[in-house]
Amino acid sequence: MDNAAALSFRHRLYVQLDPTAWPRQGLSLTNRLVCALILASIVFAVLETEPSLEADFEDIFTLLEWLLTAAFVTEYIARLWICTENPKYGGRFGRFKYACSPIAIVDLVALTPALLSIVGSEAFVLRLFRLVRILRLARLGPFSRAMAHIGAAFRSRRYELTLSACMAVLLLIVSSLLLYLIEGNVQPKAFGSIPRAMWWSIATLTTVGYGDVFPITPLGRIIAGMTAVLGIGLIALPTGILAAAFGDAIQRDKAPK
Amino acid sequence: MDNAAALSFRHRLYVQLDPTAWPRQGLSLTNRLVCALILASIVFAVLETEPSLEADFEDIFTLLEWLLTAAFVTEYIARLWICTENPKYGGRFGRFKYACSPIAIVDLVALTPALLSIVGSEAFVLRLFRLVRILRLARLGPFSRAMAHIGAAFRSRRYELTLSACMAVLLLIVSSLLLYLIEGNVQPKAFGSIPRAMWWSIATLTTVGYGDVFPITPLGRIIAGMTAVLGIGLIALPTGILAAAFGDAIQRDKAPK
Amino acid sequence: MDNAAALSFRHRLYVQLDPTAWPRQGLSLTNRLVCALILASIVFAVLETEPSLEADFEDIFTLLEWLLTAAFVTEYIARLWICTENPKYGGRFGRFKYACSPIAIVDLVALTPALLSIVGSEAFVLRLFRLVRILRLARLGPFSRAMAHIGAAFRSRRYELTLSACMAVLLLIVSSLLLYLIEGNVQPKAFGSIPRAMWWSIATLTTVGYGDVFPITPLGRIIAGMTAVLGIGLIALPTGILAAAFGDAIQRDKAPK
Amino acid sequence: MDNAAALSFRHRLYVQLDPTAWPRQGLSLTNRLVCALILASIVFAVLETEPSLEADFEDIFTLLEWLLTAAFVTEYIARLWICTENPKYGGRFGRFKYACSPIAIVDLVALTPALLSIVGSEAFVLRLFRLVRILRLARLGPFSRAMAHIGAAFRSRRYELTLSACMAVLLLIVSSLLLYLIEGNVQPKAFGSIPRAMWWSIATLTTVGYGDVFPITPLGRIIAGMTAVLGIGLIALPTGILAAAFGDAIQRDKAPK
Repeated sequence: MDNAAALSFRHRLYVQLDPTAWPRQGLSLTNRLVCALILASIVFAVLETEPSLEADFEDIFTLLEWLLTAAFVTEYIARLWICTENPKYGGRFGRFKYACSPIAIVDLVALTPALLSIVGSEAFVLRLFRLVRILRLARLGPFSRAMAHIGAAFRSRRYELTLSACMAVLLLIVSSLLLYLIEGNVQPKAFGSIPRAMWWSIATLTTVGYGDVFPITPLGRIIAGMTAVLGIGLIALPTGILAAAFGDAIQRDKAPK
Repeated sequence: MDNAAALSFRHRLYVQLDPTAWPRQGLSLTNRLVCALILASIVFAVLETEPSLEADFEDIFTLLEWLLTAAFVTEYIARLWICTENPKYGGRFGRFKYACSPIAIVDLVALTPALLSIVGSEAFVLRLFRLVRILRLARLGPFSRAMAHIGAAFRSRRYELTLSACMAVLLLIVSSLLLYLIEGNVQPKAFGSIPRAMWWSIATLTTVGYGDVFPITPLGRIIAGMTAVLGIGLIALPTGILAAAFGDAIQRDKAPK
Repeated sequence: MDNAAALSFRHRLYVQLDPTAWPRQGLSLTNRLVCALILASIVFAVLETEPSLEADFEDIFTLLEWLLTAAFVTEYIARLWICTENPKYGGRFGRFKYACSPIAIVDLVALTPALLSIVGSEAFVLRLFRLVRILRLARLGPFSRAMAHIGAAFRSRRYELTLSACMAVLLLIVSSLLLYLIEGNVQPKAFGSIPRAMWWSIATLTTVGYGDVFPITPLGRIIAGMTAVLGIGLIALPTGILAAAFGDAIQRDKAPK
Repeated sequence: MDNAAALSFRHRLYVQLDPTAWPRQGLSLTNRLVCALILASIVFAVLETEPSLEADFEDIFTLLEWLLTAAFVTEYIARLWICTENPKYGGRFGRFKYACSPIAIVDLVALTPALLSIVGSEAFVLRLFRLVRILRLARLGPFSRAMAHIGAAFRSRRYELTLSACMAVLLLIVSSLLLYLIEGNVQPKAFGSIPRAMWWSIATLTTVGYGDVFPITPLGRIIAGMTAVLGIGLIALPTGILAAAFGDAIQRDKAPK
């Protein structure tokens, strides 16, 4: 009965690993653990880039990376083993079809840098691919409904939002053009061309205001002030549209169908 | 039957070029192409002002500008040829009447700099006039409804929005005055007059905060902090008004008439 | 019949000058002119403080100030003459009662600096008192309804808005305290005391971000990042409350009573 | 009858001090006074950290601190004496049970620094614990309803708000990663690691924009501009969600149950 036990174990593992097979709400314990490991590996990938930390904790980072890689390789093999339980991959070449599915490829790509011991500064970026996995899991349970609300709000007002984006682009072009004409000769480094003036304009319209460039002539400052005030509108308009769209989406969701 | 074929071709061109004659939703293929060319010419006009790019790509820019000018001249002539198909310009002097219409004048003005080979630094601004054309096209199709929503939201709450603009101006004057009185002697360059203090005040009220000028005395900082907090209200008030106005505009649009 | 003509002229002037006596919507032509003169005098008062302008345009400013003062003195005398037409000031000592009313005192105070030829740098502030007059006029006509809407929105959610203000103050104290503890020794000038740290904190919470002070230690930056994110909430919370309150105020206004 | 008088006085004191025993709306006069004293003591605790003030007002601060401590000690003893009037602490060991309740412990901890004359720079932090007392009182009266509204708004849209927080974190990671890859070699101090780039990213996404670090390469500036624009969305999204949630909470509150 060894085989039957293995099959039974495989089925239980399948229920644990495949979120669509999980009968209850939310995520299974195994998938929660996988999520936690992915988040931990991303935190480590981010921290590892910091030179001052790497010097002190290089050994720990290496050890953790090995442990996490071992865990993710195990998970990958387990998913490859159980995939045939899923009716979608149940037929002939099911495992091959699963291995070629986008999900499995993303998993494999995210494993590559650690497995191939690539130490290039850009290879770790591949590890961030694991985030895609979490996003996929987030589409389940109560979050799927929240995502549907947000999506519906954006979709129902897509023309209004596009229009306010167009107004923002127009404002960006016009304010950059004006500042280029007014301050282009006074501050050639900051406003010597429209693309350069756009760097100032976008920092002003979004109210970020780094303060590395700003007009110094009276006329330039008047235009800058008007740009900043219109930048407020750039924030208020989409916010107002979204607020109304959300209100509408919630109303529709509650209305009897 | 040469003439008949020409007339038939003219009619088909008319349907393609005049957005009001297009029977289906959206824009015709030709008008989409014209939009794309206008956007491209604006991107080039913006990039051309950058000295570091102009040195490397001067030949390409010149070539592209010639190609685009040729395309726009062709389009202008085509529009002049087909305009008699439009009942509005069908009568005597129809072509002349079309050539004097604002639309045709904007088109002609936008062509001038390239045709006259004006190389002045300000002439290219005329090319940006082409944007007006795109805006006119945007008033068609689903965007016209979105524009109507935005317009209705602004119109229905115009007094509330004007009032919050007045409060903002009042806040601007009062905060500039206070900082001028408090810091005018300490930082004459930044706060030596009310107009100078207004530059600081507008950067603070819009929460841009360039950081080129800021109060340094304790009392000045307290007033600046209060100004910044009231600046939040300056953002929250119109946003709230717009949000409510949009919600109302959507409700009215859905209500049976 | 000279007296009758004078009385008739006085009545017509009364209708023109007193906004409550004006039978039509909006403001009378005379009051519109007075508003324009007040706005002009405020613009001049603001510009006059700028030393670089004063040198070039001193004569013009002096002339304009004399003309405006003459106009406002004429208006003050006219109002004193016509006030007896108003039933409120119709009785005995009516003119004296009007002269002692807050409105007339504000008018007189705003005239003082020019009349007494006070050239002190702070005397011009009194001229800004004229703004009060405009605000009073703004309470009439369609703006009074807008003001009622805004007032109703604030009043109906006053506890929620007070609560979010309290949260903001709490956030201000806690973030200043944390930065004082973390960076107090590293940057004593910027974070050497809680009041000093508050200057940074308020610039961060309101997302102004002058950039004159900012944390430099890793822990300080983490706290600063959290403060900035919570500052977003500080903007989002009152905006959301106001949006809902406006929506509610509009609904109530439309509902049959 | 001395004992009866004491008991009667104790009961009247209990009604004054325990907000749950107060029969009318709002707070009793004694509790208002206690609130004012707590606020005053917090203002003093904040001001005392400022070295320039301490030098001038050291004696006053010491005196005030002694007076406030005396007041709070009196209040603590009074609360301990009257607590048996509360049915909750009426039984045997009632006073001991009250002394062990979180409220009483917070009160005691807030008194410690002054009583033990700890002059350490961090001891005064304990005094800020008194704020907890005010927060507890704020949960009574009309504020409890406002707090319920705010809480309900957050709770009803918790998944949408969590999702927009997740999007913000994703945006933070992706923009930091991109700037690290683009500008890591150009500005190693500012973008030499992902955690360092995150400091820039969070200042940009929240539109604080200190301006201590900003990209200098064209590609870095394009990414920074996009990050700033998406930062607007980071503000607009939760604001819109909250606005709709508040509108919904108010509607539900008014609906007949």
